[in-house]
Parts: sequence; structure tokens; C-alpha cells
Amino acid sequence: MPRYRDLTHTARPSDAPRVVDPKNPVRTTDPGTLQMLKMLEGRNIETVFDRVVAQQPQCTFGYKGVCCRICIAGPCRVKKEDGPGSRGICGASAYTIVSRNLVRLIAGGAASHSEHARHVLHTAHALVEGHAPDYEIKSADKLHNLAQKLGISTLDREDKEILKDVVELGYADFGRYQDRPLAFLDSFMTQGRRNKFQHTNVMPKAIDGTVTELLAQTAMGVDNDPVNIIFGGIKTALADLAGEYVGTTLSDVLFGVPEPIVSEANLGVIDPKMVNIAVHGHNPVLSEMVVAAARKMKAEAQKVGAEGVNVVGICCTGNELLMREGVYLATSSASQEMAIMTGALDAMIVDIQCIYPSVQTAAECFHTKIVTTEGIMKTPGAQHVAFKPETAMEDAQKLISIAIEAYKQRDPNKISIPSERHKLVAGFSMEALTDIFAKICPERPISVLTDAILSGQLKGVALMAGCNNLKRTQDEGHVTVLKELVKNDVFVIATGCSAGAYAKFGLMSPLAVEAYAGEGLKSFLKTLEDANPQLSTGLPLVFHVGSCVDNSRGADLAVAMANELGVDIPKVPFVASAPEAMHEKAVAIGTWCVSLGLPTHVGSLPPVEGSDLIYGVTTQIAHDVFGGNFIFEVDPLIGAQKLLDALEYRTWKLNIHKKTAEKNETPIAQGW
Amino acid sequence: MPRYRDLTHTARPSDAPRVVDPKNPVRTTDPGTLQMLKMLEGRNIETVFDRVVAQQPQCTFGYKGVCCRICIAGPCRVKKEDGPGSRGICGASAYTIVSRNLVRLIAGGAASHSEHARHVLHTAHALVEGHAPDYEIKSADKLHNLAQKLGISTLDREDKEILKDVVELGYADFGRYQDRPLAFLDSFMTQGRRNKFQHTNVMPKAIDGTVTELLAQTAMGVDNDPVNIIFGGIKTALADLAGEYVGTTLSDVLFGVPEPIVSEANLGVIDPKMVNIAVHGHNPVLSEMVVAAARKMKAEAQKVGAEGVNVVGICCTGNELLMREGVYLATSSASQEMAIMTGALDAMIVDIQCIYPSVQTAAECFHTKIVTTEGIMKTPGAQHVAFKPETAMEDAQKLISIAIEAYKQRDPNKISIPSERHKLVAGFSMEALTDIFAKICPERPISVLTDAILSGQLKGVALMAGCNNLKRTQDEGHVTVLKELVKNDVFVIATGCSAGAYAKFGLMSPLAVEAYAGEGLKSFLKTLEDANPQLSTGLPLVFHVGSCVDNSRGADLAVAMANELGVDIPKVPFVASAPEAMHEKAVAIGTWCVSLGLPTHVGSLPPVEGSDLIYGVTTQIAHDVFGGNFIFEVDPLIGAQKLLDALEYRTWKLNIHKKTAEKNETPIAQGW
Repeated sequence: MPRYRDLTHTARPSDAPRVVDPKNPVRTTDPGTLQMLKMLEGRNIETVFDRVVAQQPQCTFGYKGVCCRICIAGPCRVKKEDGPGSRGICGASAYTIVSRNLVRLIAGGAASHSEHARHVLHTAHALVEGHAPDYEIKSADKLHNLAQKLGISTLDREDKEILKDVVELGYADFGRYQDRPLAFLDSFMTQGRRNKFQHTNVMPKAIDGTVTELLAQTAMGVDNDPVNIIFGGIKTALADLAGEYVGTTLSDVLFGVPEPIVSEANLGVIDPKMVNIAVHGHNPVLSEMVVAAARKMKAEAQKVGAEGVNVVGICCTGNELLMREGVYLATSSASQEMAIMTGALDAMIVDIQCIYPSVQTAAECFHTKIVTTEGIMKTPGAQHVAFKPETAMEDAQKLISIAIEAYKQRDPNKISIPSERHKLVAGFSMEALTDIFAKICPERPISVLTDAILSGQLKGVALMAGCNNLKRTQDEGHVTVLKELVKNDVFVIATGCSAGAYAKFGLMSPLAVEAYAGEGLKSFLKTLEDANPQLSTGLPLVFHVGSCVDNSRGADLAVAMANELGVDIPKVPFVASAPEAMHEKAVAIGTWCVSLGLPTHVGSLPPVEGSDLIYGVTTQIAHDVFGGNFIFEVDPLIGAQKLLDALEYRTWKLNIHKKTAEKNETPIAQGW
Repeated sequence: MPRYRDLTHTARPSDAPRVVDPKNPVRTTDPGTLQMLKMLEGRNIETVFDRVVAQQPQCTFGYKGVCCRICIAGPCRVKKEDGPGSRGICGASAYTIVSRNLVRLIAGGAASHSEHARHVLHTAHALVEGHAPDYEIKSADKLHNLAQKLGISTLDREDKEILKDVVELGYADFGRYQDRPLAFLDSFMTQGRRNKFQHTNVMPKAIDGTVTELLAQTAMGVDNDPVNIIFGGIKTALADLAGEYVGTTLSDVLFGVPEPIVSEANLGVIDPKMVNIAVHGHNPVLSEMVVAAARKMKAEAQKVGAEGVNVVGICCTGNELLMREGVYLATSSASQEMAIMTGALDAMIVDIQCIYPSVQTAAECFHTKIVTTEGIMKTPGAQHVAFKPETAMEDAQKLISIAIEAYKQRDPNKISIPSERHKLVAGFSMEALTDIFAKICPERPISVLTDAILSGQLKGVALMAGCNNLKRTQDEGHVTVLKELVKNDVFVIATGCSAGAYAKFGLMSPLAVEAYAGEGLKSFLKTLEDANPQLSTGLPLVFHVGSCVDNSRGADLAVAMANELGVDIPKVPFVASAPEAMHEKAVAIGTWCVSLGLPTHVGSLPPVEGSDLIYGVTTQIAHDVFGGNFIFEVDPLIGAQKLLDALEYRTWKLNIHKKTAEKNETPIAQGW
């Protein structure tokens, strides 16, 4: 029975325990990691699972967001309910402190994603200027499509000329001072969201300027109005989305638009007979070139006795390569150290983000070389090879050589590789999904999805995203939420370490459909498969849409569904969930999801509980203003149930209006 | 006896107590504030002095910088010397955590100053575009001078045309992506510093981009090399300096270059017979217009029974107006609430930065109206009047009307104004100082200063800067350091709340020279006075050079002295001190002072003690690389002594080389 009001945004979280139980140090459910930990028993090697226990109990002031270190008169803590101890030295209340801390996380997230995007832009810029001979325009289609969205002419023009204009506009999006919306953001939003963002004054005009402004807004003695601060955070989160969109679209242009591809995941993909190189971090600018170099250097590997070079991915670099190249995914973020501990990893080549500083410490117990490649990411003790677009292939070959050299130092006694590995299907860019739908309805491909929802075959769409956060047991949240959603016929797309979890567990394989999908989802996937005989594989239980910047593909799908239905995003049966959010980037992503109008579940609480007001703003008032809201819920089963409730309500309401519209012979939007 | 090695950068700090003694809640030495607190006794009104005591004891993890909240798996704390508890969950060591926290303070500081500068730029832009009819180019000389430094032609061009180019270059400095140095920074550095910044890879190319990059660099799983992180912080601090330089120079263009001016300071300037309006914050774009409007609205004030409108300044807005308009300075940052508590302040009009959220709470006990004016600075309960360059005078008049209206609500029983007020001389822009020196040596004005140092008449120059930080007793540090320096013949310039302290204490008056200056300084000032009969006043003990963005004037003077001496800044007898640093801006300023090559005393410790490595980098290694270093010392007398040691060493070394150079008949620089 559908409810007549969606109350998910007013519900309080469950009483599920928030804190890590130090008596239970097994903080993972990943089968490969569990095997690895078993093998390590008695070897006295420190891992993240030891450190998370050593950090208990965590400071409750910091946990709840009521510790302020924004000036050096502090730290100040909200210690009391009232009186002088209830405020910081300057007089900042709990709501000011909590909101400032929260939005500064968003600033960090937006800065991170945009730095990634800036790097892709620089590479594209070097390409058009003729300084990056090892890169090329792999997808002219994507380039033309993007240019058209951005209002850049494609008629009778060379691809490089078009890319030049796209890059210029991308740069302008970083540094614009004129009062006009971010071009990349504006180019793909619904009209409803454009209006909403203008009316609420959260449409950013420049990525870097918005981040800087937010820092200035939250400095000591500036904004103390929590709602105004949150709006500053939302503006910055939209700048984050723009940065992600720049990153995704230009990566597609340079490295190709992902298409369905078969691969394998979990630590068992590390091959004792090969030179094993893990690429770890985020940016395909580096890792694509490493893969290309590895393919050329088989002979060199054979010279030292290996059968060849086996590049495996970790974290989002893993996702990028899996999507475009079918490269094996070794593991996801929380278990990154495990790859080293197999004793068969010869080098770990990293760029930026989510790389534990501990990988170097771990590597020192083995023969593994850690190599950093970016000017803004170095590690004491690790080797640094500056990777430049101008000398990309040469640099990449140098990196492979380091691994080949290290291979000679392997200690056979230290090799213990878990057997765990699972087949999977990935590569579902927006274009790939659209192509699949188009086989059923070429004119309006997305209607295949929306019609299935309106008919009740599917319950809606969910974007599963985010990191691992060892406040929760690794991957338990991701897997539990997924299983609950697919059992209830939700069409699930996934990114980042959420996708990584499904890959590692064998849940991203066609085989998992039979075991876990509800009847509606099963029949929907069957229909798609029947219409797409060209696919060499069945469709998976959950659709991998990419790395964490590729959450922009999720936004793209939500926009397409809104446009198809003739409504704005807050009416689309589309939800998001980050059951194990950890990074600042996740806070930024979650915030733009809410601003786009999505009910957004987070299973690891950001520091908001120190202010009832901020808790209420993020979970309830956001819903009134933007149509989306956070659902903070640490119990993944209850979190999934709340997502299902939100989907059910939206679908029910869409159908009511569809019927009214049919009676009056008007489109849904007008019958609203 | 001069030492043969300057060891101030290797000395450890004294054992002076770091923590606030909660048994001694009198946390100020400001005579006006002490009077006010006496008057408030028994009235149960909360002030910042109550809150600082209520915050004791402060968290030692935060205090030392070893609490990490950069991702939401935390908070993590460095709890042990070794083992899993000695690192964050991700494996970040103390040095990584301390350095990240430290440079993120710099990012906040650079964002703050640059937001201020951006606002001045927008105003100048609106002026050039014809949309800001209430503003004008007040100093064409400054504009021409600035344009020439920036390489912009001034020949046969209208001032507005020139300003347009200057503004464009300013905007470019915020959003540039091309690999070229920040124009405003590059325009006034010594060649030696330019080379140093290029060689150490810390020359920023865009203000906003540098801040964003630093956030990305310090996000979870990115840089964990503390030295690389610190270099990122230095780059951002230089972006901060560029932002300050944009702010100062364009403010001079729009509002006039400060000239020596007589005024008064401390709470006694609040006049019970007038409508009293405090302008508080930082940006002259607002406050200059408020002053202009107040001058027009005497009649309106008289209609409600007042004698007129008395605009007084607080914090750096106070400094800006004092420098250019001779407006009374009511008080500085830590005592801002006191102005309200006189019961005779009718409105406090604020823009951005250092405005305690508590001013609204305090105002609610009186009739005072708090009015916010900027989109990024609101306060729950306060009135908001959006102030725009386009309608500046109209907006400013609205603000004055609010105060006049509030005047009617005054409660005579609540009025208690301290009698404390002191005469002072301010307005010493770089141009004003140069003019004074030029009366003695028109060809090489700065040689008047450097010759006095080389001859031993003066010991050197000190820039006193920074905030109040109630970890120290208000103004005690500022006053103690100053007295020690001037007694030892140091030529002292001051900005911000340091200048505010001297103003409030009567130490910025010519009368103070006799009481506190050493014989050398006395005779130097006498020589200047004798050569400048046009001045209507004697010269002060300490020279007010402006607000906290005007620390760029201090950099300007250091550069001029270096150029005059033919050496780079690290050889100039020039030191800086922030005895009570508090804001993120102060951390940014201190860092660029060190990078320019200045020994820089800080009396309130930033969170660096949690890592011996970072402590050593900031106090010692910085000296090896940049020639400047932090001197962390909470005892102001010892701090002053260390500054004197550094000056003495530099002067001694200059003289050695001067003698060698004279013998060889080469300039000092070549004899080096």
C-alpha cells in the first residue's frame, strides 16, 4: 500500500549502534580481504583494521561536529546546553560550528573533484596545442555531443578545433568572474533545476571561485547563519558536480566512452606468474597510459622470468580502467593494503585521492615499490616519478620498468594470494545504457526505463555510490542495501567503491540476477537482453557506471528520466545511497544529489548530530526547498527500506498524475 | 656584542605557561575594556572573557594539531608514540596530520583576504563599467603607479581605461590557468624572491586555483609528505599576499592613499550626545560609503534629538577608516562586544571577518541594531541590508537611518561609557612614509631609513601585526613587544589589531615617543620631524600602516629596503611579529612573511607542536630555504628579545659586507 505522504525525510534514524566495537576487530565482509587477513594471522603486520580499533573511542565532539578549529584561539567545543560553555570563544553556536565544519567538507570534496577535472583539462589542452603526442581524441561522437550541449559549433570543423573551444569553456568554468552560470553544469540540467538554482541563489559561476568564497564565508567572524552557510555549501556542491561532469565527459572524449565489457574482480586477479602492477587513485590520464605501456612491455617482463605484465586496478582508478579497458579490479579502498600483502604485487603506482599513507609502510615489509606521480601527492620513502602529459608514454614505461625491476626482488615465502575472484560485466556509460534501451524504443530510449517504472515492473532507479568507512564493517552496507533494492525490483547503477564492492562479491555478474533480483527486475533485464542479441554477455544485477567523478553519469540519467517524464527531478523515482561514505568528495556528492531532488541515504554519519537544527535542515528542510533530502541511517536494512518507501511514493504520485493527465489528454507535466 | 651566528631560529620556546588560568578571568589589559568590565560587574552579561574561561581546558589534541577530521571516518587522533594508535585510520602520521591542518588554515586565510580583494575588484569593475556612480578614482597617482608596475600603459589614456586594464589583470590573477606568475605578486617582488619562488616551485599562478589545489592536495589519501604539503601552504600564502596587494592597492585607488592624520581611539570616543554607529569588519567598500552618508545626514540625526552622527570603527574596518578619514577607532577585535555594552551604540554595521557571532546576543540586551550587509555574512536575529556598489549611497543612507531610528530606543539607565580615549597619528601608507623620508633625501628616500640602520641609530624595522587571541591576555603581547622594540631603537610599523592596541593605549601618539623610545629612535624621529615642517603633528612612536590586508604595505617596505641595500629581503634588518595571532588570515600572513625572508615571531601558538618535524620545518628548515623562520614564543619579552637578536645579527652582517664592499669599491650586493 503506498502512503499518501512520503515521510522518509521526517523519520529519525534507528538506534543501530554507531560506534566501532573494539572487541570485534574484523571490520570487513569482503571475502578476498577475509582470506588475506586469515593468511596474515600471526605475522604482526599492521593494517587499517588495527588502526580503526586503536582509534576507539573516537572523540564525540568531533564526531558530532561541535569542535571548532577554524581559528587558533580554539579548539572550542560545545560543552553545555546553555551559558558560556554552549558556544565557542567568539560566540559561535552549535549550529554555526556544525554547519561550517560540514560545508568545509564539501569545499574539500569540490576541490578534489575539480583538481581531477583540471588535470584532464590540462591534458586535453596539451593535446590540442600539440604537446601531448601520446593522447588522442578517442570519441569524436562524445566530443560533438558535448560541444552541442555547450553551444559550441561543430559544423565543418576539425575535432581538435572543437576540443579547443570545449577546453576553453572548461577553463572558464574554473576561473570565471562574470555573472553567468557554470557552462558545464548549465548544459545538462533540467529547466526546473536551473530555475531552482537561480531562485535559491546557489548557481555557481566558477568552480575555484566558489570553493574560495565558501572558505571565506566560513572563516572566523564571517557567516554564522546556519541556513546561509548550508546554501553556500550547496552552491559549492553544484560546483563539484560541474567539476565531475568536466572530468567524466572529457575523459570519455580522450579515452573512449565505456561500453559493456567483461572482467574479473577481487584479490585473486593478482597473478603469481606475472609482473603485477596496481594502479591506484583516480585519474585515467595516468592509468590509461600505464595500461598502454604495459601492453608494449611483455617482452621486458619475460626477460626477468615473468609471463607478462598484469595491470590491476584499485579504488576509482580501478573503476576507470575496468570501464574502458576491462582491466581487473584488485580491490577497493578499505582493503588497498591487502594487495601489497599478497607478496606478489611488484609496484603500486598512485596518482591522487584515497591512497592510504600506510601503503608505503606496508610495502616496506615486502618488495613492493610505491611510486607517486603527481606534484601534489608524495609519500616519504616512496619513489616519485613526475608524470607529464607531454612525455606520457615515456613516463609510463619508466613506471613499468620499476615494477619489472622489483619483480626480481620477490620473496616466494611471502607470497599468499587469496583465491577469491569473480566475473563481472561493467562499462555502462549513459551512452551504453541508452543504446541498450534504444533497441526496444529507438525514438525515446529512456521511456523503456520510465515505462517499466510506471507499469510497476520496476520500482525505480537507485544510484549506489561512495566509499568504505570503517565506522561500518567494510562492504556490509553496500551489499545489504543492494540486495534489498534489487529484491524489490529497483534498477541499480553503481559507482566508486560501492561498485567495487559488488564487483568483488560477484554481485555484478549476470549470474547474480537469478539469485537476487525480484521478478520485475528479472523480467525487465530479460527483455533488454532479448532485444540486444549483439551483447556477448548477459546483463548484470547492478550496472557499473564508473568512478566517483562518474556520479555525474547518475545525474545525467536522472535528468534524462525527468525530461522523459516531463517533470523535474524531485518527482522522478530515483534515489541515491552511500552506505559507507567517508571522503569529503562523498559529502559533496551527497549534497548535490539532495539539491537535484534525490532522497539520499548515507549510512556513515557526517558530523551533523551536534545540532538539531542542521540535522533538520539536511534531512527535512532540504526536502521542502529542493525536493531531496538526506536519510541518515546506519542500519543498512532500514536505510534500504526508507529508499524503497521514497521510490514507492514517487511512483505512486507519478501514476496518479498520469491517470489525471490521460483523462484530460494532457502530458503528465501539465496535469501535475 | 653581536653574535656571529643568528641562532634565533634554532632556539626552543621558553617555558612560559601556554594555557589560560581559569582562576584569573581578567583576560584583557586594555584600559577601556577594563573600565567597561568594571561597569558591567553584577549585571550578568556574558562576554568573550567568560567564554574563553568556559572553554578551559582546551583539547590538547586539537591544540597540538594531531586531531584529523579531514574525512568522516574520523575524528582520528595521534594517541601514542608508536603502533596503530600513533597514526590515523588511513595511516597518516603526526607530521602529515599537523601539516595538513596547518596549511588548511593558510587556505582559509588566503580565501578570506582574496574574497575581500575580489569585492574591491568587483567595485572597481562596476565603476569602470559605469554601474557604480557613488565611487570614483580618488588617487590617479596610485593608479598610474600601479599600472606601470603591472606593465600597463598609461600614456595618453583616460584613468578609467587604465583602471579597466588593471581590473582585468586582477581578475586574471584570480582565475588564470596559463603557467605564468600572479601579476600583482610579480609586480613588486625583489628579483631574488622571484627566483627563489620559481626555484622552490611556490610561485602561484592564480589565487583561487591555488587555494583549491591546496584543499585537493590535503584531502584524504592525497599528499602525506609533510614538506611537500608545507610548500603547498607557502604557495597559497603567496597567493594570500597577492590578494592583499590587490586589496590594498585598489582600495588606495578608489578611496585615496592614506596620509598622516590625527584621530582618537578607545571606547571613550562613543559620544552619548550623538547617534553612534560602529562599522565593523574589513572592507572599505562599505564603510567609506557609510562615512560619506553619515556626513550628509546630520539633520536627520538632529530631528531625533541627537547632535549628529558619530561613526566609529572597530577592528580592521576601523583601521581602514582611521587611515583615510581620521574616523575614531572605538576598539579592536577581542573587545568588540564592549562597544555595544556602553548602551550608547545605536547600530553596528558589519561586513566580513572577525565579527563575533555574539554581537547579536549582546545587542539583544540593549537597543543596538546589528546590521549585516554581505551575502556571505548573515547572523540569525540581525537585520540584513544587502549592500551593492550599484546603489551604494542609497544603501548606506538606509543603514544610517536604521541607527537613527534605534537611537530613539536608547535606555538612559543602561548607558555607561568608559572615559578612556587617546590621541593618535595614523595614515602612514608607503607613499606617506616615502614622502617624509624624501624631505631628507629626495633621490633615494628609503636610504634615510637604511642608512640610519647601518649607522646604528636604528636597530632595524619591525612589522607588528595580527589579532587578539585570548589564549593570551588581550593586548599584553602587542604592548610588551612594542615597548621592548622601541626602547631598543627599532622603527615599528603596525597593522590590524596590533595597531588597534597601540591606538587604544595611547602608544600611537607623538607624546609616547618621549616616554618609550630609545635615544636612537628619538633622534631619528626628530630628524624626520625637523625636515617635515609641513606636518601639523609630531610623529608617533609606532607607525600605523593600515588594516590586515595592508600588511602588503609592510612587504612593500621590506622590498624597498632590499632594493635600496642591493640585497634580497632575507638580509634586510626587518622582522615581523604577531604576538596574539588568532585568525586563519594571520597564519597566511605569517607564512608569507617567513617566505619573504623575515624572522617572524608568533606569540600564540598555531597547532604545530604535535609534530617535531613540522615544528622544525617552520622554525628552522624554513630559514635554510627562504631565509625567514617562525619564532614561536608565548612570553612577549623573550619574543621581543629574539626579534632584537635577529635584527642585530642582520645589521652586523650588512655592515661587515658594507666595509668589505667599500674596500673593494663594489656595491654591497656584490661584496656579499
